[in-house]
Amino acid sequence: MSTKKPKKSTGRLGKPGSSKKAGLPPGSLIHIGSIKTENTTIDLISYDAENFEVFTQMNGTDVLQKTLKGRKNWIKVTGLQNTKVIGELADALGLHPLLTEDILNTGQRPKAEIGEGFIFFTMKAISPSEEEGDFTTDQVSFVLREDALITFHERDLPIFDVVYNRMQIPDGRFRSSGLDYLMYALTDIMVDHYFRVMEDMAELIDASEDALMKHSSENTLVETQQIKKDLLLIRKTVFPLREALSTLIKTDSVLINPSQRTYFTDVYDHVMHIYETIENYRDLVSGLKDIYHSSVNLRMSKVMQTLTIISTIFIPLTFIVGVYGMNFDFMPELHFRFGYLAVWVVMLLITIYMIREFRKNNWL
Amino acid sequence: MSTKKPKKSTGRLGKPGSSKKAGLPPGSLIHIGSIKTENTTIDLISYDAENFEVFTQMNGTDVLQKTLKGRKNWIKVTGLQNTKVIGELADALGLHPLLTEDILNTGQRPKAEIGEGFIFFTMKAISPSEEEGDFTTDQVSFVLREDALITFHERDLPIFDVVYNRMQIPDGRFRSSGLDYLMYALTDIMVDHYFRVMEDMAELIDASEDALMKHSSENTLVETQQIKKDLLLIRKTVFPLREALSTLIKTDSVLINPSQRTYFTDVYDHVMHIYETIENYRDLVSGLKDIYHSSVNLRMSKVMQTLTIISTIFIPLTFIVGVYGMNFDFMPELHFRFGYLAVWVVMLLITIYMIREFRKNNWL
Amino acid sequence: MSTKKPKKSTGRLGKPGSSKKAGLPPGSLIHIGSIKTENTTIDLISYDAENFEVFTQMNGTDVLQKTLKGRKNWIKVTGLQNTKVIGELADALGLHPLLTEDILNTGQRPKAEIGEGFIFFTMKAISPSEEEGDFTTDQVSFVLREDALITFHERDLPIFDVVYNRMQIPDGRFRSSGLDYLMYALTDIMVDHYFRVMEDMAELIDASEDALMKHSSENTLVETQQIKKDLLLIRKTVFPLREALSTLIKTDSVLINPSQRTYFTDVYDHVMHIYETIENYRDLVSGLKDIYHSSVNLRMSKVMQTLTIISTIFIPLTFIVGVYGMNFDFMPELHFRFGYLAVWVVMLLITIYMIREFRKNNWL
Amino acid sequence: MSTKKPKKSTGRLGKPGSSKKAGLPPGSLIHIGSIKTENTTIDLISYDAENFEVFTQMNGTDVLQKTLKGRKNWIKVTGLQNTKVIGELADALGLHPLLTEDILNTGQRPKAEIGEGFIFFTMKAISPSEEEGDFTTDQVSFVLREDALITFHERDLPIFDVVYNRMQIPDGRFRSSGLDYLMYALTDIMVDHYFRVMEDMAELIDASEDALMKHSSENTLVETQQIKKDLLLIRKTVFPLREALSTLIKTDSVLINPSQRTYFTDVYDHVMHIYETIENYRDLVSGLKDIYHSSVNLRMSKVMQTLTIISTIFIPLTFIVGVYGMNFDFMPELHFRFGYLAVWVVMLLITIYMIREFRKNNWL
Amino acid sequence: MSTKKPKKSTGRLGKPGSSKKAGLPPGSLIHIGSIKTENTTIDLISYDAENFEVFTQMNGTDVLQKTLKGRKNWIKVTGLQNTKVIGELADALGLHPLLTEDILNTGQRPKAEIGEGFIFFTMKAISPSEEEGDFTTDQVSFVLREDALITFHERDLPIFDVVYNRMQIPDGRFRSSGLDYLMYALTDIMVDHYFRVMEDMAELIDASEDALMKHSSENTLVETQQIKKDLLLIRKTVFPLREALSTLIKTDSVLINPSQRTYFTDVYDHVMHIYETIENYRDLVSGLKDIYHSSVNLRMSKVMQTLTIISTIFIPLTFIVGVYGMNFDFMPELHFRFGYLAVWVVMLLITIYMIREFRKNNWL
Repeated sequence: MSTKKPKKSTGRLGKPGSSKKAGLPPGSLIHIGSIKTENTTIDLISYDAENFEVFTQMNGTDVLQKTLKGRKNWIKVTGLQNTKVIGELADALGLHPLLTEDILNTGQRPKAEIGEGFIFFTMKAISPSEEEGDFTTDQVSFVLREDALITFHERDLPIFDVVYNRMQIPDGRFRSSGLDYLMYALTDIMVDHYFRVMEDMAELIDASEDALMKHSSENTLVETQQIKKDLLLIRKTVFPLREALSTLIKTDSVLINPSQRTYFTDVYDHVMHIYETIENYRDLVSGLKDIYHSSVNLRMSKVMQTLTIISTIFIPLTFIVGVYGMNFDFMPELHFRFGYLAVWVVMLLITIYMIREFRKNNWL
Repeated sequence: MSTKKPKKSTGRLGKPGSSKKAGLPPGSLIHIGSIKTENTTIDLISYDAENFEVFTQMNGTDVLQKTLKGRKNWIKVTGLQNTKVIGELADALGLHPLLTEDILNTGQRPKAEIGEGFIFFTMKAISPSEEEGDFTTDQVSFVLREDALITFHERDLPIFDVVYNRMQIPDGRFRSSGLDYLMYALTDIMVDHYFRVMEDMAELIDASEDALMKHSSENTLVETQQIKKDLLLIRKTVFPLREALSTLIKTDSVLINPSQRTYFTDVYDHVMHIYETIENYRDLVSGLKDIYHSSVNLRMSKVMQTLTIISTIFIPLTFIVGVYGMNFDFMPELHFRFGYLAVWVVMLLITIYMIREFRKNNWL
Repeated sequence: MSTKKPKKSTGRLGKPGSSKKAGLPPGSLIHIGSIKTENTTIDLISYDAENFEVFTQMNGTDVLQKTLKGRKNWIKVTGLQNTKVIGELADALGLHPLLTEDILNTGQRPKAEIGEGFIFFTMKAISPSEEEGDFTTDQVSFVLREDALITFHERDLPIFDVVYNRMQIPDGRFRSSGLDYLMYALTDIMVDHYFRVMEDMAELIDASEDALMKHSSENTLVETQQIKKDLLLIRKTVFPLREALSTLIKTDSVLINPSQRTYFTDVYDHVMHIYETIENYRDLVSGLKDIYHSSVNLRMSKVMQTLTIISTIFIPLTFIVGVYGMNFDFMPELHFRFGYLAVWVVMLLITIYMIREFRKNNWL
Repeated sequence: MSTKKPKKSTGRLGKPGSSKKAGLPPGSLIHIGSIKTENTTIDLISYDAENFEVFTQMNGTDVLQKTLKGRKNWIKVTGLQNTKVIGELADALGLHPLLTEDILNTGQRPKAEIGEGFIFFTMKAISPSEEEGDFTTDQVSFVLREDALITFHERDLPIFDVVYNRMQIPDGRFRSSGLDYLMYALTDIMVDHYFRVMEDMAELIDASEDALMKHSSENTLVETQQIKKDLLLIRKTVFPLREALSTLIKTDSVLINPSQRTYFTDVYDHVMHIYETIENYRDLVSGLKDIYHSSVNLRMSKVMQTLTIISTIFIPLTFIVGVYGMNFDFMPELHFRFGYLAVWVVMLLITIYMIREFRKNNWL
Repeated sequence: MSTKKPKKSTGRLGKPGSSKKAGLPPGSLIHIGSIKTENTTIDLISYDAENFEVFTQMNGTDVLQKTLKGRKNWIKVTGLQNTKVIGELADALGLHPLLTEDILNTGQRPKAEIGEGFIFFTMKAISPSEEEGDFTTDQVSFVLREDALITFHERDLPIFDVVYNRMQIPDGRFRSSGLDYLMYALTDIMVDHYFRVMEDMAELIDASEDALMKHSSENTLVETQQIKKDLLLIRKTVFPLREALSTLIKTDSVLINPSQRTYFTDVYDHVMHIYETIENYRDLVSGLKDIYHSSVNLRMSKVMQTLTIISTIFIPLTFIVGVYGMNFDFMPELHFRFGYLAVWVVMLLITIYMIREFRKNNWL
């Protein structure tokens, strides 16, 4: 039994969140997550219909003075280790210490909170990684204010490049729309990537099903358990997101223009769609297990059948030849002219009878 | 183990939706779905109590000018590839870009949206295909306005012919009723076809059960998994439809006449009925799996029993004859007059005893 | 494997409803169901505190003129094939065509609808049939108006006789109560019969459990699947009934006297009781399957044990006697005086050792 | 297979309720339940802060005149067979016939009903019976009026003695509190006994688990099924009780003093606690089944392993000795000096090799 | 089968609560729980921005007079055996007897109650114990009043030390915040420890999965059942906590400052997070069982295969050599020159054919 240990361990699901901070005062600023970049960098993208300026490598409190009134400002905070910088920035933004904690703790449940003068929103970006069937998650937190949208993530997310590129188009929608549209666009791109991951899952389930049809190695079952884990992980990400998006849609905060609510409703529909797909996939995966078990059973049943056919034919025959191998002085058959031939005929008849019986029972 | 790969693969369930557009700006017009017709054609059916006129092969923006005030106009858009034409038509209708996107993305969840001056509604038509037990799904989107009902679908749907034929009857209900009644009739015909598909499923389940009673090939289990997948697919179609229809029923939009709401309530009841039937079928299918497993087990148990009966009778006998096949110089029994006969008698007694024991245990 | 095909097939659950009418205009009057009587007959029972008159064999529109003002009138429509008669009656009653359709389609979900001047209510009567454990369902539709209660059913229902008999008692409750009480009494008698069917189910489950304790034939599992199907069928009948009764209880229609609502609440409680019982039974039935599987497994395990014991004892002994059946020129043991005896002693010791081992492992 | 039939049959769960009355007019007074006492006796306990009087063997209508205004009166009706007496009493109390029916039908779902001038409440008392792990259920119905609390039960309930004793304490809480407190105290004592039964269940589950660890007889599975049935039975009792208690808590009837509502809320919390415990136990019981199945499987796997080891070693050896038992004229090996010894050496080497292989595979 | 009895028995889940008090008047003060300290000690921590004083070993009623107006007072009651002291203190605090009972009954469901002038809140502290994978639960009850926060627990909880230490920091948050913040901090620290326990569970699940991959001892399944039990236990603790915290968040009591509600919302989010994680873990544990069963089956299938291969090859060969061991007078083959060689060749060919067949079937 060679069971290739799958590369992802249960441990991934195993981190339920924030125990690292147990014992620290609430609101303590500790980065909880894997360190994905070396530094915390802050970029400012300041734009309006006419202008598009990018300032990189800003420092924490500085950036807020640099934001230009009248323009839309996207402050991109990449890397969460430098808790001091982030703490100062959060203070300058007037965030509650608990929200700053949520930004830094990448095991946070997706949620939205409507504050005075700002909207806080955090969700997970799931992107397929290079290895097939694998994916990575990143926590992305948003603070939407009247003058700026601040995003926090552990590393530079390539999936945001599309948005960045589109923002540079002079007459594009971004330039004329508000920061709520930018936030929607980033949210939408993340949810679109959920679909991609779901497609990968679908392919994995298909591949597992095909593999199970051909041969039932135990590896397939382990892979099935892995798919199940991944589905649970995505579900854990998607389930609270419904609630969070619903908060954004229902809010009467002026920060989200009523005309933009349609966009968030659209994202919400996509999330519902993914959620229902996850539930269906979980059902299918449990069906795969049934197929696996049944194929192991069927195989065993075939092995047993072979054994039984061979044994049932030859054991009686072996008994018969054993009889005439006995050394009794008085065994008249041994001296019959056609005794030997008769034994062969009898054995042949028995064999034919047996084979017929097997045929009748569909064993052959 | 010859496992005929079933014709439908998991892939069908596997397409969770709109990933193709990931990276494109929201509202980008891309047709997502299988191309089912070569061109996008627009037909206009303009009718009232006295008149019934059909204009075919219209082009996008043209059609709206052709609609005759005072008459009811059904604009049938068949084929979704020509996104430019559909985009222009949608703009002329004043649809939100996201709704246009929903029309073009055939993986869209059924939904209804009440806009200003229009009602948007999208659902799936399921029609049994030629191959038994198989079916195809088509997305049908409706835009209901005061002067026109616009329908969008990837191909000409034969199930709509019935409605078309009935519309031509001069004193028919259609001619005197509004466009909301036309929309209801089309919705109703689609839901009626759900029942047909459910009947096919019922026959498949029956057939599988009968097949399982007779012989338990692994194919049957694979078919069972396929039925399960199909049920999940239909459920995914029906589940959000409840919500969408409920929106139509509860709306106070003037576009749906209060007296027509009864009709939509009736459709809603049918959908509920189908939903409950799906849940029952899923239960039955899981019961089929139990029967399958048990029949494999029972079969194995019978095989084992045969082996055990044969072995248990003949192995001891073979031992006895082996004893008297030994070549010891001093084996008094060998020289007894009735030694050989005695051995046969002993063996017969043992066999009789064994058979009795088996009878007692119900093994024979 | 002789599997007696159970008399009821999945097909019963398989009819999800109204596909027969697919393609027909909504509201088309077609009787969907098994034809249970040859004709459609209409009886009128006209009664008040003093009078009790029965008119049989009325024709459709006639009956409404015969109803006597001031009296309570029960119009009993038996047989649904003559759609013309029923259509005319329904029109005369002012029923919406969709309700008429519901009356004729016996696969209709139980439902209640409060109309202007009438209450429409439809449910299923389940009555145990002659064959034990079997039952038949009939759809009963009610139209309650101020002057009359009209009931529609496919055949004369014997379970209503009790009500009919009691109505004839001059000072009985029926004579002094309104038509809402009559409707309640009919509903109540139908729900009471659900309890009877549930009792039959309980006996079937008991019998199956006892059968499983004694011997595990595959038939028992098939019966278990049948019980499951029946439970699903009843559940499908009972589940929407809760909703329908709730509508009757909550209505402020003058047709149901507030003082009568207690009665319908009582029926509702009974329906809830049945619903919970069904859920419990489903749980028990799945437990039966576990017992079945385990008893098949246990049996197989016993068969294997027998085989193993016999094989493990005799195979080594057979080897030993085989050794001394060899024909080597030089085999000193063969010529020993007590060689033959020694072999017997050795074999006896081996056998004793084996039996002890089996005892230790609880195999004997 | 000796399966001791467990003393409790499914039949207990099997009585879904009131079918005995099917065909009788609603409100017909029939006692449905097992007859537990020979007579219906009515006791009156009349008390206030100073007085405590007990009148036994009252007759139905009499008792109401005996109740002393200004005092609190507990009317205890024991035994439900004498439906005439109970009917008269119920009429005198002004109960709706349906409620009287509920009192007499001991299969009634727990429920509370707030009437004009009275509160009706019915629940089940579960008391552990002498036989370990077994318990009996009694239906207790309450009618709370301003002047009296009437309780109905099939037999004298020993669990009420505690309350009775405490009532006699002159300065006790009972004497100064109202009848609502008495009703609470009786309810509370019944719910407390649910905990006792749950503790017995916990011990049974523990015992079953321990038994399964040691040996897997089929009896254990049957016991597990029995535990499951008992849990379902208790759940059926507890589930609707939540609703009934909630009705009592939320009522604004003057019969329950707002200050007493805390008490009923406390009972409600206990009921919730029991409900959650039941759900957990059901989960555990299904886990027991898994352990059972796995231990049967493991045992079979060990049996098979033994068979395989013995067979795999001796079958080839038996073949070898068979070879040299052949009687060919020309078999040179037979005449070799060390032929016999060589065969033994070869057989020994084969045996050693086999044993090593088994060791490597962890079979030995 | 050596099954090491796991140290924790089902009994732990088995204590559903308060049966010990069955038969006692409601509100009777009995300590229900394991005795964890010898005495009941009362400590008073009195602090404000400037002061921090600790008074130990107070007696019950005394402590309330010692609380200094204007200061915040934390009254820590450790040990619940001395019911008299606790009863007096509770009376002095004006607690309802039922709440006092809840404090003393450590099997109480987590709950919050908003009283007049106080808030009562009780939950469980779960702390990992020394033994790996094990943990202990303590009930902690809070009474929050304007002048004091009283906490009740069975033993000194080390997890509160962190809070105690931080309170001593002169300019710390505690000194400037109210008692609601103290209550939050204690609640938060307990929930943070839930995460720690969940991490331990995750490691146990990982370890079980790894163990199952390597070898499938029955112990692993027993451990899996134990993990399931622990998850159920935690769920039982966490599930009602959601409700209790929700009560605290929604209350409009002045005792919890609106600005502090964010803190309790944060705890609520953590509890939701844990709850979802528990559900996921339960799913994973049931997946482990599947892997276990499949690995037992696979192993058995391999054992059977070995047996079948050996038997299928050697049983026919043994028959052949048996044939030529017969002693018939007339067996011409025995006298052929190459008879013996021919037999060997035939046997070799059979063996080669068999091995090829096995290869084809993937059995070798």
